[in-house]
Amino acid sequence: MSHRIPVGLVGVTGYTGMELARLLARHPGLELVRATSRSEAGKTLGDLYPGLGGFPIADCPVSQPDVDDLAEACALVFLAVPHGTAMDMAAALVAKGVKVVDLSADFRINSAETYAQWYGLEHRHPELLPDAVFGLPEFNAKDIVGAQLVANPGCYPTSAILGLAPALRESLVLTQGIVIDSKSGTTGSGRKPSVGALYCEVADSFRAYNLGRHRHTPEIEQELGRVAGTELTVSFNTHLLPINRGILSTSYCQLADGVGAEDVRRAYTDAYANCPWVRVLPEGKLPEVRHVRGTMFCDIGLVVDPRTGRLIVVSVIDNLCRGASGQALANANLMLEQPLDAGLDLAPLVP
Amino acid sequence: MSHRIPVGLVGVTGYTGMELARLLARHPGLELVRATSRSEAGKTLGDLYPGLGGFPIADCPVSQPDVDDLAEACALVFLAVPHGTAMDMAAALVAKGVKVVDLSADFRINSAETYAQWYGLEHRHPELLPDAVFGLPEFNAKDIVGAQLVANPGCYPTSAILGLAPALRESLVLTQGIVIDSKSGTTGSGRKPSVGALYCEVADSFRAYNLGRHRHTPEIEQELGRVAGTELTVSFNTHLLPINRGILSTSYCQLADGVGAEDVRRAYTDAYANCPWVRVLPEGKLPEVRHVRGTMFCDIGLVVDPRTGRLIVVSVIDNLCRGASGQALANANLMLEQPLDAGLDLAPLVP
Amino acid sequence: MSHRIPVGLVGVTGYTGMELARLLARHPGLELVRATSRSEAGKTLGDLYPGLGGFPIADCPVSQPDVDDLAEACALVFLAVPHGTAMDMAAALVAKGVKVVDLSADFRINSAETYAQWYGLEHRHPELLPDAVFGLPEFNAKDIVGAQLVANPGCYPTSAILGLAPALRESLVLTQGIVIDSKSGTTGSGRKPSVGALYCEVADSFRAYNLGRHRHTPEIEQELGRVAGTELTVSFNTHLLPINRGILSTSYCQLADGVGAEDVRRAYTDAYANCPWVRVLPEGKLPEVRHVRGTMFCDIGLVVDPRTGRLIVVSVIDNLCRGASGQALANANLMLEQPLDAGLDLAPLVP
Amino acid sequence: MSHRIPVGLVGVTGYTGMELARLLARHPGLELVRATSRSEAGKTLGDLYPGLGGFPIADCPVSQPDVDDLAEACALVFLAVPHGTAMDMAAALVAKGVKVVDLSADFRINSAETYAQWYGLEHRHPELLPDAVFGLPEFNAKDIVGAQLVANPGCYPTSAILGLAPALRESLVLTQGIVIDSKSGTTGSGRKPSVGALYCEVADSFRAYNLGRHRHTPEIEQELGRVAGTELTVSFNTHLLPINRGILSTSYCQLADGVGAEDVRRAYTDAYANCPWVRVLPEGKLPEVRHVRGTMFCDIGLVVDPRTGRLIVVSVIDNLCRGASGQALANANLMLEQPLDAGLDLAPLVP
Repeated sequence: MSHRIPVGLVGVTGYTGMELARLLARHPGLELVRATSRSEAGKTLGDLYPGLGGFPIADCPVSQPDVDDLAEACALVFLAVPHGTAMDMAAALVAKGVKVVDLSADFRINSAETYAQWYGLEHRHPELLPDAVFGLPEFNAKDIVGAQLVANPGCYPTSAILGLAPALRESLVLTQGIVIDSKSGTTGSGRKPSVGALYCEVADSFRAYNLGRHRHTPEIEQELGRVAGTELTVSFNTHLLPINRGILSTSYCQLADGVGAEDVRRAYTDAYANCPWVRVLPEGKLPEVRHVRGTMFCDIGLVVDPRTGRLIVVSVIDNLCRGASGQALANANLMLEQPLDAGLDLAPLVP
Repeated sequence: MSHRIPVGLVGVTGYTGMELARLLARHPGLELVRATSRSEAGKTLGDLYPGLGGFPIADCPVSQPDVDDLAEACALVFLAVPHGTAMDMAAALVAKGVKVVDLSADFRINSAETYAQWYGLEHRHPELLPDAVFGLPEFNAKDIVGAQLVANPGCYPTSAILGLAPALRESLVLTQGIVIDSKSGTTGSGRKPSVGALYCEVADSFRAYNLGRHRHTPEIEQELGRVAGTELTVSFNTHLLPINRGILSTSYCQLADGVGAEDVRRAYTDAYANCPWVRVLPEGKLPEVRHVRGTMFCDIGLVVDPRTGRLIVVSVIDNLCRGASGQALANANLMLEQPLDAGLDLAPLVP
Repeated sequence: MSHRIPVGLVGVTGYTGMELARLLARHPGLELVRATSRSEAGKTLGDLYPGLGGFPIADCPVSQPDVDDLAEACALVFLAVPHGTAMDMAAALVAKGVKVVDLSADFRINSAETYAQWYGLEHRHPELLPDAVFGLPEFNAKDIVGAQLVANPGCYPTSAILGLAPALRESLVLTQGIVIDSKSGTTGSGRKPSVGALYCEVADSFRAYNLGRHRHTPEIEQELGRVAGTELTVSFNTHLLPINRGILSTSYCQLADGVGAEDVRRAYTDAYANCPWVRVLPEGKLPEVRHVRGTMFCDIGLVVDPRTGRLIVVSVIDNLCRGASGQALANANLMLEQPLDAGLDLAPLVP
Repeated sequence: MSHRIPVGLVGVTGYTGMELARLLARHPGLELVRATSRSEAGKTLGDLYPGLGGFPIADCPVSQPDVDDLAEACALVFLAVPHGTAMDMAAALVAKGVKVVDLSADFRINSAETYAQWYGLEHRHPELLPDAVFGLPEFNAKDIVGAQLVANPGCYPTSAILGLAPALRESLVLTQGIVIDSKSGTTGSGRKPSVGALYCEVADSFRAYNLGRHRHTPEIEQELGRVAGTELTVSFNTHLLPINRGILSTSYCQLADGVGAEDVRRAYTDAYANCPWVRVLPEGKLPEVRHVRGTMFCDIGLVVDPRTGRLIVVSVIDNLCRGASGQALANANLMLEQPLDAGLDLAPLVP
């Protein structure tokens, strides 16, 4: 009989659900005992994901989501369903004492008003917002450990916040005029069929979308503002890459007077000295998406450009693993007293 | 016997040479009579490019480059060789009265000093710089018509200049603080074998390179400065896309006081009213690389972001066609009194 | 006022409709006057396909399909709708005296019984089958010229039939034991959203599908049987390539006694001596999908393998252009007394 | 101090060396103590492969290959160098009592004469051939355990042999007329720069190569002949896929009289009942490359086609992991008394 801690996954058919299944398949301390899907109930995980064939997790049945059943069977539940849907499920599970890691945006924004403004939706459980913890392990590990509800960060925000926080915390750059130009792989578009996500609409092409109005903007501003100790506005803009996984964010900031390349480098290496998943690259090196593929790493390249007085930060993550499911699992590890990197000690698949 | 005008192509084995061959294969008024390559002399174009099989151009022999022979046989010669190599060949051909379209960077920068600084190379023919015309047909058509030597613009500069010129010309944006975040397809890396350009190093990945120090920077600053009527410095930064063709540049500028979305839109539609190859997209639409594939189009999307007071311009071209060989052919059309779009009336290949 | 011949296109939102629009955009003798779509009526072609912006065809309105209107306005109508749907529309248009090129499978199979067996559908207009012409210009040009209804060949059959016909016609290979291993780009899956056609399900992967039971099988057997002068059965099997366009079919046949490489080569070069779109590659060369991209070419490589006594034929086409819309246009050219290659004199886009 | 067994890797800069580094980075029982490269000596593994940053293996220095040093430091050495080069190194190491897993073809072919014929090279150490074990763990585990020199199978042969062996062993198919149509990802072309392996020559294209004369042919015939108990000749043919990793082989055989789908299925499930890495898919399912990405799995789909009397087997592996470095590590595990799947218990990265 298994002595692993039982966990559940609500929403197993999307890419974040699929990625959680991949990671849980090899987790030594957690066991997936419930996987739910409204459309695929009755099958097994192995039916949905032939790549998991041969792993015990393949036998996990896919069932209809049922809060009572989940609460009874699971110590923690991952919510991999769209925003708007997640909030009710989270509230119900929390009420029953189950720990929840919500991969949607529903509990990331502290202000219900800001949430409503960007997501076009009234928050139905604002009472949970004060205690929801923003699940970025590098900065919030202590709060995550004791949390009952963790709001798993968005993929873009993860890359942007890790990329800019050290410079802002030490006031090495101005808080005005920050531009974040982000590029994401297509798993970020989700697995719901649409013409725009078809192979032949994405392959061998590239495009910008949602310029100036991507919903991840308030999340970035909230967390960077917290670090900077002041409210700030960023120009955050997104593009769709013809790759499966990966986000690369190129961030542009104005250097504060007198700040040089060494100050910047020291700030970043200090900030992440005890963070094995954040790799600050040596002078002259820039990160590539492939070097983090399938992993929790965030690779950061730093360029101080004296011609323009700018700091350019390039930060790279795997949007599905670090930017969603892997980070969710890291949060679960903290909440369930597992080693932080349990199930996440992965080397990138290159090429 | 052909009554088409004889032209030559020096450097037929790179991607720009290959693309010129594709376009010349169907040109009604120009005939390729010389194609040169140091490594492939003795073959025919059809041997090098099986895709041209069946077109008369396939029979064109590939020969060693020989200035006397080129000058005798050709009314105009395209130079599709690296910078540093092109300048001597251009000077020799010009001295013999042949018209030259140089696809390299050798004659793009007016100042030999700036050239030396960015290209690490003394210019050996600065005497030709004053008369070399920067070959952007939308802005310089009159000068191109009478030129003997045209410096064909770089691929990135073509996208950046077409994208930003109208806003700068009318002072709708500040000249300070401009950020140009460009992403290019891999044909831009050339056809010389290197590990970094191998399929398995590029596919399913993405990376930044040459941040703050790409050689196309002075070309962009020179031409935008000319339009703005003042010297300016831009933060120009480049990334490598896992696609064959295409550049998308996302440019960020601070709006001048009181400038609104309608001012911007009017400036762009006016500027390009008589430019069939520049398509200013309607409000709310953003360009995609695939919609210009294989063509001369530059598609421009405009976003005025009131939250940040910024104008965001997204400009897209095919780096090989519009950004190199197609533009070279447009310049040749002007220089040889051909219709501007002869051989270039192409619909994009989508998907 | 235009003196071009008016044509219509039923079903403009799929990839074959999109490709027809691309080709008609530059056709000197045909004018698209009707483009229909049940879902997109009310827009213009330029709204659907921004890549066509600037071409007059972009102004063509998209309307609901209406047989009377089509018959009144058009000399010829292309049907780019699914099999089963096309047959009624074809019958109605034919009854009104309009010429029809049907891109679906509805009139390709001579036997209504065989059609029913493979397509799981009773044929509602078997009376039209005897006069429907199989639209492969290389073999049936004379019949196409006078046809009112042309059944445009399937993409896979086009590659397989052009690849095997010369060997079978001259009995250089046995009719037993033929294996056709085909690989197609993803445009062949159509543009209707489905999980299986999403970018992230196709990219960086490869799979076989419909082994032994692809619906193009009877079409291949019918046409190759006609050429061979005897009924034959082939093992036809299909795979999905992570590329936009292109089919490569590798066909394996047993050589008849005494047949050598020269016999084979002579048969192919003779068969296609007057066919500018079929390029039989020289000894030792094999075709690549990219060399036919966007064109009507069928490139054929021939390998006689003495170790196994086999002829291996590799035939390559662009599935969307030659395998569907371009071939439909070639048929229309023949039916409307246009030059065969009007609108189709295209050089491949490489790379 | 480490109690892991010290191993060496000769040839660390190619894709097989890179993949071995990825796998060894997480191996609990083996420690990479020597990594050699003639061109990159003096760096560390982490310099070459930034993706390994943070893993202890990143600190492993890259040195010039030196047999004495390797023999002294390592219990086992992996040779990831080209055929022709490997044989001398293998002989020298074997002479010093070191265990060797040779990833090249040098010891796969039992007959030095056949080797010379296909590889165009005299074998300089035919005396080692009788004792070299063909390293396919499913069939030869017992011999591998005691071997000093293991010839690691080729990538294509691994897919073909695992795919066809059960049918041939039980005489369910004829040994005559077998066709193996294989398609491989581009890592199979190696990491040495060449025009043909550039991104822009491979992406969005597909081609056949080496038809009828690929060097993996004799290896397939040797091993399948052994299983069938008789010499046989196969038509083995290869194609290049625009993907990083993966081989899919579609194999066509004539069914013996009276053999049905159930006989076939039973033979395969029996053959691989105790082989956790071989997954025989259920009736009606076909394998996809992505489902084995980065793993040791071989997925097999079986189709009995009554129309043509054929068995069609689709077998899929990751050419780099199962087809090279992962299999090499499995062999090392057997040779060094490690658990077979140590370092290889990987779930596929999908998507």
